[in-house]
Amino acid sequence: MTYCLGILLRTGLVLASDSRSNAGVDQVSRACKLALAATRSDRVIIILSAGNLGTTQGVVTRLREAAGLGGAGDLLALRTMFDIASLIGATLREAMDRDARYVKPYGDPSASFIVGGQIAGEGHRLFQVYSAGNVIEATGRACFLQIGETKYGKPLLDRALTIDTPLDEAAKLALLSFDATIRSNLSCGPPIDLLRYEAGGFAVDNLITLQEDDPYWLDLKQAYSDGLADVVTGLPRPPPAPPRR
Amino acid sequence: MTYCLGILLRTGLVLASDSRSNAGVDQVSRACKLALAATRSDRVIIILSAGNLGTTQGVVTRLREAAGLGGAGDLLALRTMFDIASLIGATLREAMDRDARYVKPYGDPSASFIVGGQIAGEGHRLFQVYSAGNVIEATGRACFLQIGETKYGKPLLDRALTIDTPLDEAAKLALLSFDATIRSNLSCGPPIDLLRYEAGGFAVDNLITLQEDDPYWLDLKQAYSDGLADVVTGLPRPPPAPPRR
Repeated sequence: MTYCLGILLRTGLVLASDSRSNAGVDQVSRACKLALAATRSDRVIIILSAGNLGTTQGVVTRLREAAGLGGAGDLLALRTMFDIASLIGATLREAMDRDARYVKPYGDPSASFIVGGQIAGEGHRLFQVYSAGNVIEATGRACFLQIGETKYGKPLLDRALTIDTPLDEAAKLALLSFDATIRSNLSCGPPIDLLRYEAGGFAVDNLITLQEDDPYWLDLKQAYSDGLADVVTGLPRPPPAPPRR
Repeated sequence: MTYCLGILLRTGLVLASDSRSNAGVDQVSRACKLALAATRSDRVIIILSAGNLGTTQGVVTRLREAAGLGGAGDLLALRTMFDIASLIGATLREAMDRDARYVKPYGDPSASFIVGGQIAGEGHRLFQVYSAGNVIEATGRACFLQIGETKYGKPLLDRALTIDTPLDEAAKLALLSFDATIRSNLSCGPPIDLLRYEAGGFAVDNLITLQEDDPYWLDLKQAYSDGLADVVTGLPRPPPAPPRR
């Protein structure tokens, strides 16, 4: 498993991924699941990957190799983020058609993606590419997309995140969502890659990697746990049962 | 789905369940999943149920009918909570042997249980009965047990709950765990049944039911969301990426 999160904000995008890769509990390694697939003055395209590592790496590699060659498979030539997301879906379908029947006896070959970014001429956008290759887009009503181990990190986002959340606040919530997932599930682990993209900036330089012992990461987790404990202590106690008549 | 939670504390037990019962999205009703299976001066036994409603109701009904009749199937005669949990597992296996093959064409017949309580002569104890009929016991290192839709409500408990948490504080955390589940998953819904059991009390009178519009429930959720938002606002922002060399 894996956990990747994409957040659509009025002011930009937050994209984050963990680095745990495992096939069973005794084959654990690290993988980077955040790929800067295309960055040029007129476009930035960031892809987050979950699922079979052979499938996800194959899809991203083929997309990169085709970039600049022109045609329908060229990340640098397509004109909308919808077309980019659809291209990832099509490339995933090709990979599954080619590989799935060979991989299935050994494990699940499927994969899914989140792709965010911006192409000059339209606003910044965020999409999810399902294992089936079809795509959905994040909107103001559903402003975040998750792939991989999605449940543990969802309640905090459901409670606190909106499309109007400022970029750095959303980045904090993203990291806390990862902390919740890492605490509750062995298949998600640091380092965390976190990219903040400011709408219209066409720059992907605000990408940080938080190692397990990063001082900010440790501070954030401790301060959140302490703050949360104080909040719970301050809440009213449940009333006792009414006396029986 | 369903969500049931049992918490083992030094000072007692907290047991809670939601009331949503559904078979698909257009067949939704309410069911009580917290059963006071046996209450007498020398024992209290509380059973929480998840899974197929026919199976869970059948198991609880048969256990109640056999209570007082003596023998290995008598909740009132067994001498330890381990024996009680094992009896529930055995009764579940009988139900599955009898019904499962008839039910499977229409849906999942399986069920699981949490059973907590105390029998004079030993301390208060908490067990989970798996669908297979085998049982595990909560301990100081793993002091809560969940059945049904367990993931959304787990991070808060992992972060804030220990066996040393006071009874009323644990009850608050239990309710917040239910709120997280209800927010993120349609298959869990109010009213919430919440029982606080004080060790050695042999009383189950502190059982409350919180309806959707209960003023305490509404206050708790709002105060928690507000407090959480303040905590997040007060946390340090993620550092920017270091300048490229």
